Amino acid sequence: MTNYEAFLSHAGAHMQESAIRQMGTVLAGSKDMISFAPGYPAEDQFAWEALAEIARALLSGSDGSVLQYGPTRGYKPLREAVVALMRDRGIMSAADRIVITTGSQQGLDLVARVLLDPGDVALMELPSYTGAITAFRNVGASLVGVRQDADGINLQDLDRTLVSLRGAGRRVKMLYLVPNFQNPTGLLVGLDKRRALVEWAERQDILIVEDDPYRDLFFEDVASEDDTRPLAADDEAGRVIYLSSFSKTLAPGFRVGWLTAPALLSSKLELAKQATDLCTSALDQRIVYEACKDGVIGNRLPALREHYRQKRDTMVSAVDSLMGGRLRWTLPRGGFFLWASLTGGLSARDVMPFAQERGVIFVDGSAFFVDGSGAEFMRLSFSAPSPRRIEEGVSRLASAIEAAEQQGTAAAALR
Amino acid sequence: MTNYEAFLSHAGAHMQESAIRQMGTVLAGSKDMISFAPGYPAEDQFAWEALAEIARALLSGSDGSVLQYGPTRGYKPLREAVVALMRDRGIMSAADRIVITTGSQQGLDLVARVLLDPGDVALMELPSYTGAITAFRNVGASLVGVRQDADGINLQDLDRTLVSLRGAGRRVKMLYLVPNFQNPTGLLVGLDKRRALVEWAERQDILIVEDDPYRDLFFEDVASEDDTRPLAADDEAGRVIYLSSFSKTLAPGFRVGWLTAPALLSSKLELAKQATDLCTSALDQRIVYEACKDGVIGNRLPALREHYRQKRDTMVSAVDSLMGGRLRWTLPRGGFFLWASLTGGLSARDVMPFAQERGVIFVDGSAFFVDGSGAEFMRLSFSAPSPRRIEEGVSRLASAIEAAEQQGTAAAALR
Repeated sequence: MTNYEAFLSHAGAHMQESAIRQMGTVLAGSKDMISFAPGYPAEDQFAWEALAEIARALLSGSDGSVLQYGPTRGYKPLREAVVALMRDRGIMSAADRIVITTGSQQGLDLVARVLLDPGDVALMELPSYTGAITAFRNVGASLVGVRQDADGINLQDLDRTLVSLRGAGRRVKMLYLVPNFQNPTGLLVGLDKRRALVEWAERQDILIVEDDPYRDLFFEDVASEDDTRPLAADDEAGRVIYLSSFSKTLAPGFRVGWLTAPALLSSKLELAKQATDLCTSALDQRIVYEACKDGVIGNRLPALREHYRQKRDTMVSAVDSLMGGRLRWTLPRGGFFLWASLTGGLSARDVMPFAQERGVIFVDGSAFFVDGSGAEFMRLSFSAPSPRRIEEGVSRLASAIEAAEQQGTAAAALR
Repeated sequence: MTNYEAFLSHAGAHMQESAIRQMGTVLAGSKDMISFAPGYPAEDQFAWEALAEIARALLSGSDGSVLQYGPTRGYKPLREAVVALMRDRGIMSAADRIVITTGSQQGLDLVARVLLDPGDVALMELPSYTGAITAFRNVGASLVGVRQDADGINLQDLDRTLVSLRGAGRRVKMLYLVPNFQNPTGLLVGLDKRRALVEWAERQDILIVEDDPYRDLFFEDVASEDDTRPLAADDEAGRVIYLSSFSKTLAPGFRVGWLTAPALLSSKLELAKQATDLCTSALDQRIVYEACKDGVIGNRLPALREHYRQKRDTMVSAVDSLMGGRLRWTLPRGGFFLWASLTGGLSARDVMPFAQERGVIFVDGSAFFVDGSGAEFMRLSFSAPSPRRIEEGVSRLASAIEAAEQQGTAAAALR
């Protein structure tokens, strides 16, 4: 028998499954499961007809490059379209500083590989996006958490953490942030705080990795486009690596995202991508480009915002009326997630088996905390299910929490 | 000014551009350039009509998962189709040991990350595929070359190298091989040698990474399907990680490849992929699956083999008639490349500027040697250009070599 364990690299031996993807596997195994787990966009909102027409034209065979290898950095007209799209967000970039990535997750992985050595520190919000946590951990980085307030990361705690790390001789390379409708909390970092963070990065000689997939999906009752101005828009010193994606606004099946970074870093990230997958799917890039150019994405955004806002309302109403105070939550101002905490002393892990039994799944909130805390939280995604299924799912979840409470009481009575 | 160099990881600081991709950039910058550089398949051989029809049906909107996130391991029907396809190659695998990769390059990167720590040794053929060299170097592995004979890697040199490395206390984890129509040499490893290599891996407690993108493209005048039996087909001890791709037989623009590995390694490779890009493009996987199922790939293989064989003949005839003995070459028995060496003492690097000036590019053969040798070699890809362009390109190359020789003579006269 071959001892395969002995062949694993340090990284290979320590890789762990993402809690979100794990729930995806549970989901695939069951027919009637209602999923509040992965942040899947609503499939009935995809621009099927327009995309089919675009694909038909592209696959006519008149342009062979549609199915050929392409440049590692990405299809140039798409990079130019991304420059224009970012200009609308206030960011001045250039096509030769952009790298088209195979989804934003690849951007996170490339950043990790180009910047982080084992033991280097990346500062992370508490909680933070699991995909970034995994990508950074896989290169052996140390992830240190910083508290968040209602308007985003706490600047005092950020400074305190940095001083203490530097005092201990640690090399702090970056701060990872999701300023718009954070995954998982749905929070929005305040505009003053954004500017303060950019200045802080320059003063402290640190890079900021700004991950911005949800920016276009603000809910107009509690947020506006002005609230979403990226840190990268005010980054005169060149401290910000900015990542975004077409996954939430067009479709994730294409695996097309992008990053923009200062020139030297952008070149290094391109080199890292070269050895990783040579280039992103040519067909996917071309379809996304045509969808940008024809306004397929831009024209649909108002309806998309309204669609997800309504689903948020459905979920919030259902939680209010069905949970009897068992869940506390913050109103999401955009994005896909309701971030909720159990008020009765239960952990999300206590509830999980009862929930699965009743046909509803969510993501255990502790997966988003790099410091091992957050056991009482759960991330409930309202983006994919229909309103009727959202209500049914919340009802199943309420029953699951109740069952978990009863088991807890029974167990306590036995002690 | 930010000192970005100070932020780079060890890997980031040492990443180098691939010689093949570099030539791709030169190519993109010029209109009349004839490219013998990247191994691009012929675009006029892509199954445009069938693929357009498949895409039309998939994008009807009746199945939302076509544009959704999917399982990291890949679309299950595609994995099952890959099992059947490998069975025809003599390999017994199972859908849960396969990982669909974003092109075969991603497979190489995942293997590197899961198996290789800095300083670990990977044994490589001399010469070997640059994409593997870069992926393995990016994780800090030491690459040690082993000589090749006309029937593939030299077993005595392999043993000698292993003994010497182990004597020096090095950890040798894997042997990387392209047994079928090797990139860059076009060589085929003999069947006896294949079986000997599998036994050697078991005896020496080493893994073999078998990279097999060209297997279907044998040239029937000098090779047969029987000659291509993968090492993985006789791997009873579970020593082989097998990688292949749809890039050469269907189209590379889809970025769909696969790997199969022993169960534990396959799980680890899946985890590594999870943090790398979550999943491969859903649309691309679905199109490739339908193309498998409908016979779009299989039915075209005889014509494809004939197409590339004819182009090989065109290039070989042109070299014979136009080079006047300035190039020595081996007859490729399949694949995309003529591997040629300069006979007059020149290096490929000497010829390169003259070639570019005359509108023809190739890949400097030294890029394929991990030991720094091979300066006299050039890799000439005959797969993409038309026969007329192949002839014109060889004529330009002959003129470039002549000009480089004259400059060499003139420089010698001045000394």
